[in-house]
Amino acid sequence: MADGRELIYFDETPDADRILDDPRELPAVIPGSRVRYDALLDEWVGIAGHRQTRTYHPPADACPLCPSTATNQSEIPSPDYDVVVFENRFPSFAGIGPQVFDGGLFDSRPGTGRCEVVCFTSDHHSLLSNLPASRMRTVIEAWADRTAALQAQDGVEQVFCFENRGVEIGVTLAHPHGQIYGYPFVTPKTAAAIRSVRRYRERTGGNLVGDLLAGEIADGARIVAVNEHWVAFVPFAARWPIEVHLYPRIQVRDLTGLGGVERDALAELYLDVIKRMEGVFDDNLPAITGVHQAPVHTQDQDFWLHLEVLTIRRAQGKIKYLAGSESAMGAFVNDITPETAAQRLRDVQVTR
Amino acid sequence: MADGRELIYFDETPDADRILDDPRELPAVIPGSRVRYDALLDEWVGIAGHRQTRTYHPPADACPLCPSTATNQSEIPSPDYDVVVFENRFPSFAGIGPQVFDGGLFDSRPGTGRCEVVCFTSDHHSLLSNLPASRMRTVIEAWADRTAALQAQDGVEQVFCFENRGVEIGVTLAHPHGQIYGYPFVTPKTAAAIRSVRRYRERTGGNLVGDLLAGEIADGARIVAVNEHWVAFVPFAARWPIEVHLYPRIQVRDLTGLGGVERDALAELYLDVIKRMEGVFDDNLPAITGVHQAPVHTQDQDFWLHLEVLTIRRAQGKIKYLAGSESAMGAFVNDITPETAAQRLRDVQVTR
Repeated sequence: MADGRELIYFDETPDADRILDDPRELPAVIPGSRVRYDALLDEWVGIAGHRQTRTYHPPADACPLCPSTATNQSEIPSPDYDVVVFENRFPSFAGIGPQVFDGGLFDSRPGTGRCEVVCFTSDHHSLLSNLPASRMRTVIEAWADRTAALQAQDGVEQVFCFENRGVEIGVTLAHPHGQIYGYPFVTPKTAAAIRSVRRYRERTGGNLVGDLLAGEIADGARIVAVNEHWVAFVPFAARWPIEVHLYPRIQVRDLTGLGGVERDALAELYLDVIKRMEGVFDDNLPAITGVHQAPVHTQDQDFWLHLEVLTIRRAQGKIKYLAGSESAMGAFVNDITPETAAQRLRDVQVTR
Repeated sequence: MADGRELIYFDETPDADRILDDPRELPAVIPGSRVRYDALLDEWVGIAGHRQTRTYHPPADACPLCPSTATNQSEIPSPDYDVVVFENRFPSFAGIGPQVFDGGLFDSRPGTGRCEVVCFTSDHHSLLSNLPASRMRTVIEAWADRTAALQAQDGVEQVFCFENRGVEIGVTLAHPHGQIYGYPFVTPKTAAAIRSVRRYRERTGGNLVGDLLAGEIADGARIVAVNEHWVAFVPFAARWPIEVHLYPRIQVRDLTGLGGVERDALAELYLDVIKRMEGVFDDNLPAITGVHQAPVHTQDQDFWLHLEVLTIRRAQGKIKYLAGSESAMGAFVNDITPETAAQRLRDVQVTR
């Protein structure tokens, strides 16, 4: 790209003709991120002062994620694409280098890592859920490919593929897209899960996630949809009005461990789950999809890849806000029981 | 109250005349909350299916938190009040009883505890920050009194006094008010803090919070305001655009441990901080104030009472949303450096 960022096309046909040259005059953004240690909560926080000026709700005819046209020279030089990944111009984390932790109470390091944008389709007005399973499969291929690339980058401790969807989630670009973060630390949720999995292994000799998954399958009340390779369910202690977790039946640490058939099966089940979530409230779906993958350097062999999809829609026209209990104390109160949510999801008629 | 809930007036003058009889016909709400254990994250989640029907943005002339009038028989029978506390009609947690933890992977208990509403003033159109320090002092008195009462209730593990403010935070009643939760579990943030404090005590023999506080005072770059008994600063690893923590200079476990002079000093400094936060963006302030208090049954003597005030306002007309990184992974990225935030807060001219 004109300012030195990398852009990668993921094409579904071998003869796709892509333009690689970005003709824009684009000054480089110098990312100045740091990560700081919160000693009280034992968590890292990113401080990214340069991001306040990022692109904010551009008009559709100036969309930076659409293919380039004569009147809109976008981030993607080609007149068309299938799936494309490129480095975020306003990254939360950027730069290569080892992380050195001084262990002090006021510890701060460079915010190394990498932030990428994943465009799911060249059609500005589409949605991921409207795309065929073959396109979802290409997205999964891109996720897995970029996971491997970012895991190999010095200073990246965990790779997170995700999609934010809807203005209520804070999405400022309407074009269907997701993101990939290569974090310079292990994220708090993953650190907590690893603590639990280790403790359970020490205490019982078993895999916590495997036993939870077996329990969900045996109970059945919270199962949403399954296929030969994946299981989708509302978790027993769901925090969000509608929340679905997708687990592969076999344990793998991250997307790179999935074979072709498991990737096909994930594409199919994921689209099914999203359509069910859209169907529950018959309303737009402000949602977050997160791919939970093992940290790069953990010695732990028990981590179990999974996807979590949540919506903050709690009723038609109403959203769940994170107020004092959730934001200040981390204590969630969910107004919909997980079994009710699962039943409503199962009841949705999904058209393929 | 007509449905059996408790209501307590906190009067500033001994001759205040209050009506104690609630003349309404009000069917009792049967709370059916449960708490469920998330074994993967080692956290409890409240499931409260009965709360979906709660009051939602009533018109000002039907406000349930205003004093009662001939045309609006509200939650408060009296024609006036100073500060009043009553049980929430749609509580997230309710009921008395010991918590029995079975230790299983799919553990669920009754959602015992108590949820209260605290009205700061009878004036519907006021704000806490417009009230005199004497009123804030009465609010602190109510917080401390209710903390002691809820701590004594069987099944309450932690008491949390807080204020949600602004429609962007999800507040559905405009009348100036806060809430008090008596949780049946130790909240995740507090559990994390206690882990860190214990580890630090074992490793160094010191109090982590005391050392952090001393570090903030010595550095000075993030100090917002101080008085003889309290220190207000933006934390080193702030997660929110503007976030201020208020610590007493001496260590106490909760509000009940504060003497009269410390309560007076908190009232004064808290109002000063809120006015500074309002002044930074010269815009309405969607904010959360949380009073962090020690759990009821912790053996830990190191817990240090403090208040945390945060706003999701990141610029005029813009708010910080919790998207994939924050909501799915717990990894915050803050676009404003803490030192910049502190400088902007110090620069605000506060009128008293």
